[in-house]
Amino acid sequence: MAKTFRVGLIGYKFMGRAHSNAWRQAPKFFNLKANIELHTLCGRDAAGVQAARAKLGWEHATTDWCDIVESPLIDIVDIATPTFAHAEMAIAALKNGKHVLCEKPLGRDLKECEAIFAAAKKAKGVHMVCHNYRRIPAIALAKRMLSEGTLGKLYHFRARYAQDRLADVEFPLDWRLQKETSGSGVHSDIGSHIVDLARYLVGEFTQVCGVVHTFVPERPRADLLAKGKRQLGKVTAPDSSAFIGWLENGVMANLEATRYALGRRNHIEIEINGSKGSLCFDFEDMNRLKYYNGDDPKDRQGFRDILVTQRDGIQPYVANWWPPGHGLGYEHTFVHAIADFVNACADGKSVHPTLEDGLKNQRVLTAVEKSSATGKWIKV
Amino acid sequence: MAKTFRVGLIGYKFMGRAHSNAWRQAPKFFNLKANIELHTLCGRDAAGVQAARAKLGWEHATTDWCDIVESPLIDIVDIATPTFAHAEMAIAALKNGKHVLCEKPLGRDLKECEAIFAAAKKAKGVHMVCHNYRRIPAIALAKRMLSEGTLGKLYHFRARYAQDRLADVEFPLDWRLQKETSGSGVHSDIGSHIVDLARYLVGEFTQVCGVVHTFVPERPRADLLAKGKRQLGKVTAPDSSAFIGWLENGVMANLEATRYALGRRNHIEIEINGSKGSLCFDFEDMNRLKYYNGDDPKDRQGFRDILVTQRDGIQPYVANWWPPGHGLGYEHTFVHAIADFVNACADGKSVHPTLEDGLKNQRVLTAVEKSSATGKWIKV
Amino acid sequence: MAKTFRVGLIGYKFMGRAHSNAWRQAPKFFNLKANIELHTLCGRDAAGVQAARAKLGWEHATTDWCDIVESPLIDIVDIATPTFAHAEMAIAALKNGKHVLCEKPLGRDLKECEAIFAAAKKAKGVHMVCHNYRRIPAIALAKRMLSEGTLGKLYHFRARYAQDRLADVEFPLDWRLQKETSGSGVHSDIGSHIVDLARYLVGEFTQVCGVVHTFVPERPRADLLAKGKRQLGKVTAPDSSAFIGWLENGVMANLEATRYALGRRNHIEIEINGSKGSLCFDFEDMNRLKYYNGDDPKDRQGFRDILVTQRDGIQPYVANWWPPGHGLGYEHTFVHAIADFVNACADGKSVHPTLEDGLKNQRVLTAVEKSSATGKWIKV
Amino acid sequence: MAKTFRVGLIGYKFMGRAHSNAWRQAPKFFNLKANIELHTLCGRDAAGVQAARAKLGWEHATTDWCDIVESPLIDIVDIATPTFAHAEMAIAALKNGKHVLCEKPLGRDLKECEAIFAAAKKAKGVHMVCHNYRRIPAIALAKRMLSEGTLGKLYHFRARYAQDRLADVEFPLDWRLQKETSGSGVHSDIGSHIVDLARYLVGEFTQVCGVVHTFVPERPRADLLAKGKRQLGKVTAPDSSAFIGWLENGVMANLEATRYALGRRNHIEIEINGSKGSLCFDFEDMNRLKYYNGDDPKDRQGFRDILVTQRDGIQPYVANWWPPGHGLGYEHTFVHAIADFVNACADGKSVHPTLEDGLKNQRVLTAVEKSSATGKWIKV
Repeated sequence: MAKTFRVGLIGYKFMGRAHSNAWRQAPKFFNLKANIELHTLCGRDAAGVQAARAKLGWEHATTDWCDIVESPLIDIVDIATPTFAHAEMAIAALKNGKHVLCEKPLGRDLKECEAIFAAAKKAKGVHMVCHNYRRIPAIALAKRMLSEGTLGKLYHFRARYAQDRLADVEFPLDWRLQKETSGSGVHSDIGSHIVDLARYLVGEFTQVCGVVHTFVPERPRADLLAKGKRQLGKVTAPDSSAFIGWLENGVMANLEATRYALGRRNHIEIEINGSKGSLCFDFEDMNRLKYYNGDDPKDRQGFRDILVTQRDGIQPYVANWWPPGHGLGYEHTFVHAIADFVNACADGKSVHPTLEDGLKNQRVLTAVEKSSATGKWIKV
Repeated sequence: MAKTFRVGLIGYKFMGRAHSNAWRQAPKFFNLKANIELHTLCGRDAAGVQAARAKLGWEHATTDWCDIVESPLIDIVDIATPTFAHAEMAIAALKNGKHVLCEKPLGRDLKECEAIFAAAKKAKGVHMVCHNYRRIPAIALAKRMLSEGTLGKLYHFRARYAQDRLADVEFPLDWRLQKETSGSGVHSDIGSHIVDLARYLVGEFTQVCGVVHTFVPERPRADLLAKGKRQLGKVTAPDSSAFIGWLENGVMANLEATRYALGRRNHIEIEINGSKGSLCFDFEDMNRLKYYNGDDPKDRQGFRDILVTQRDGIQPYVANWWPPGHGLGYEHTFVHAIADFVNACADGKSVHPTLEDGLKNQRVLTAVEKSSATGKWIKV
Repeated sequence: MAKTFRVGLIGYKFMGRAHSNAWRQAPKFFNLKANIELHTLCGRDAAGVQAARAKLGWEHATTDWCDIVESPLIDIVDIATPTFAHAEMAIAALKNGKHVLCEKPLGRDLKECEAIFAAAKKAKGVHMVCHNYRRIPAIALAKRMLSEGTLGKLYHFRARYAQDRLADVEFPLDWRLQKETSGSGVHSDIGSHIVDLARYLVGEFTQVCGVVHTFVPERPRADLLAKGKRQLGKVTAPDSSAFIGWLENGVMANLEATRYALGRRNHIEIEINGSKGSLCFDFEDMNRLKYYNGDDPKDRQGFRDILVTQRDGIQPYVANWWPPGHGLGYEHTFVHAIADFVNACADGKSVHPTLEDGLKNQRVLTAVEKSSATGKWIKV
Repeated sequence: MAKTFRVGLIGYKFMGRAHSNAWRQAPKFFNLKANIELHTLCGRDAAGVQAARAKLGWEHATTDWCDIVESPLIDIVDIATPTFAHAEMAIAALKNGKHVLCEKPLGRDLKECEAIFAAAKKAKGVHMVCHNYRRIPAIALAKRMLSEGTLGKLYHFRARYAQDRLADVEFPLDWRLQKETSGSGVHSDIGSHIVDLARYLVGEFTQVCGVVHTFVPERPRADLLAKGKRQLGKVTAPDSSAFIGWLENGVMANLEATRYALGRRNHIEIEINGSKGSLCFDFEDMNRLKYYNGDDPKDRQGFRDILVTQRDGIQPYVANWWPPGHGLGYEHTFVHAIADFVNACADGKSVHPTLEDGLKNQRVLTAVEKSSATGKWIKV
């Protein structure tokens, strides 16, 4: 009979909702190697977490995260809190032998990430950092094609994660814009996703050169706005970043993260060029992958607009959902991540992206920050 | 304290899965006016329905649909079977005082649809025919804009529902291609969706002229293929249709339904032109609505590519899900339909599209068939 | 030594400008089999034609078109006048042994077209009706692919020619909206182009059923507006048309022509679906052809976005212009038509589309008009 | 009576053809303030230049460029040669009092550009460096919108000039890949165009940091291939470049030039984000400008797809050509440049981009090269 994993989730806001949904949905759409029990939800506000518990489908609620990481009833700890809390929670969970799924970015800085991964190395649990975008079907298909050498020798990797909400200078100063809570603001919040995709799809960074920047240095404090008061506070973390660099095997890289691109809601644009073809992706059209095959007959070459919704296992993940042309949405990326994670836990096998990927990601982020501070190229 | 509706669902294949998901998800993402209990799932195959029950999240299973429509425990009957079964089930459910949600097309022909609606008129239950595409956020936004007169006087309505699976002449002869089980094949299966969108967005048809057609008259029988035997059977229902016509207020209409358009997976393309602007939609990019505003300054006019994912109730339905740019998928259309349906049941109020809409839809489908048979224009 | 053809052009407005440009440009970009001399330009207004002569690059000017069709100096007569003048001019030119290029639609009605073609059959000159869109490189490539059987057995042909200038009810009543001058208004003006593309790309129409329609029955008279006076006049020709029909070999056809589609400037949208693939085209992106190949590997199928600008004769016409990616514009279609026409004249060979194509086109247009009048299907 | 300018053009290959066409076409489509006489064409190969003279429409031909720059008959010298020849020719032409139009990049290095501009400052002639892309109608419209403050405070400028012909490692080593003849290879050949667009649309660069790179260090020599021999030679100029930087007023810049992007034929992609909106452009869809207006009503915001083909002077340049939706091509950019240049010569007024723009452009290119050599940020 199949094992049952009891899950404890810390955090019930945006990421908590997305993860809860994935825990509920994964067993409905995938044949998992273990059963899932949505055991305990944790949040700091007692009333809030109780309401969320019912709404999101959890059995129990607590305001003390130690109830989760220390409980012998819990098998899997899922950390969906703001960044500043990751290290303490993840390390405790790992020490307590839990399987750990942790939101990205893994920590606020290199030191935290190193400590987390050191704990992971000593622990027996399976671990994953939640770079959910790896499991967009189009991205998983791109990875498969790249692994098969479809693009030949690679020349360029280019990614831009652009949103627009900070273009409004009245957008409040929340935890994401403060160094103490977020680590590196937009650079690590969304920049880490495209660093992860570069590493996943192409390989490791060898050196980088770039800027982290704060376009709007002061914003209305979110905490005071909640009390009806408008008072400016200092933005202490970058609200944008851009860098060039090199990936292994001489691939030129160009990455940019910003929330100042009006009209770009969640635009994760990627282009990879190789000697045999090119691939393009844009999250705002997440069910599509564009592929140029240099070997197509010369009179009929062009980017193919692949709608990644084929049945029968032809394309990753999608066969578990709906017929061709019936696309998926944002939340499915978490369902796929959690389905793979649960199976890995059941098998006791490692599953990408591990906490080590989280650490390696931070090395790139930190190198860009150093480059920005010194005006120099930094080896990763 | 909120009422609880116990739901019985008949059918567990494609539509059964989509409806089950919606029953599970609606309470998680919408503040419904009643609780939902996934009470009983019905299917013809005992082993199949038991497996589906567990997988899809239902408490009980049965192979006899009368267990559902007659049970005093059941409040809502959801009919997700092939078309031929709708009438008998829906009428029984309505007679038993149930709220009824019925898949489209409502029946195989006008007579069935009339009988169903006659039962609905006498019944106290709330009823809906499941034209889920009305509740794509982009379509709901289009409806709101049209209701506000955004496009001015309308000139053209144009819709095409194109898929490609029948382009393979070896695609099997299943219930959807037989008159006895499906009514009018592709014409009613997918054609009914665009007839519904025409009626919803613009208004009633006054007359039509067109063809229903069968491109491939014989195909391998699905039932025998399942037994490893290839034998051709006669395709007795249309596998395509095309018609022109007039909608009220002099709007020229052009509709086409086909499964012979290679590369079109689930292409529901709509264009509406009026004296003040135009709207375009394509289901394969379901999170987008294109809008041309004739009043924009002349040097900067162009179709706006609206990514319908805005928060704060700015655009219909989407605020209940994720932040801007984090798109939805196919299944969300059912969640929206069921959320609205449950609220209507709780309020005891009518909710569109009613079973009368299903009947009116059939009048259009039937008129096209008559036109095809006679070569004449037919009044609807 | 190469022959020299002396050309006489009748008409100097929109089409006259486009043709003049093509006569000038063809020898610069194509190695023609004959030299071209822009000999005489004809127009009704003496001052106007003199100014146009200089501007458009002609040696002589006249206000009497007989000077051209009867002149022993002239080899080629190019008729770029409003439709009502075509028949008289073309017949005279043919009788005088000229090579004749005539704008579309060939005549105002079937009778005129038959008379023109009767003259052509008796004449020795080469003749062409100016359906310039056949020689858009993307269309020429589509034709080549279709001729090679690339799409397999064809199922659907779909075309829509949509513009938006009549959406403004104040757009003046000009010759294009009057039966006496235009024949069938928008139906023949732009509708004839997509009828031609259907015939060119797929084959002959066998029967049609449709409507020709006038959305706005009265408009300010252009002739009086020119004198500063606004007075409504009757629109006597259709300002829109839509029809379905059958092409030979059982291809279902759907065509629409309108100038009421706001935001559509010159949208000639075509889609052809066959058993092995599909092709799509939109004139507003005239350098692109979309091609879906049903034989591509299943995990990477999708419409290819072919930018039709390849060198070395790989794609039709474009090698004569610029490097890949350096697109062409509207006027190039006339240059290609005239280059092919000149070469045909030099060789004394027929070149498509001939005046017979103009006649066959009119048979389709007329059949649609009859269908509209009678409410019946009409054989072509 | 209007003045007549006699033009001498040096170079008859790709750029010579494009310029010749523009000299011929400008007077046909624009009301110029002076007449144009295509007087003398110069090229190194006697037979080649004679053939080109006839084909391209010039009166005289010569193999000695001094015949042009020194001739008292010539008013305008148009230099369309490889880069290495620009300085000597331009300086001589300027010294001889000619109006000078010079292809880009202006020179091979800063020293050459400075010498050219020094000569220009002392000369009386009007001068222009041929960054023809400024006069794409969509770019000219973008410039107008930016000048009016349509985008508010600017945050990001992003441009990529991507082609694909070098992805083939057998593409020959021609003058464009050698330092001595080209200056900086792809970096200056196409990189200079996007540097120019950044400066034109947004403003001056203040500092840059980046790389110039050579992906394929050896290629078959073009000169020997012409003789049927394949021998590798050293690529001495960059075949790609990427840099980040800052434009005045704190605009973050990101530029990349490459010929290794398979599927990208002539992809000049630009995005500009400001506090009130965004603009996007792609040369492969050169008749379109995408514009996001942050002030559009919140429920209907989205990038507008502006087809820049409006009549009546609504959008720059296009009214001189064809009706709406009848797009232009690559060559029109030269016609616009030359039309403006001729009018400026007639008026004796400066016209952008001047040779000083060519110099300022080189300062940016050189700064990137220095940055690449030193690994440091370089002030421009």
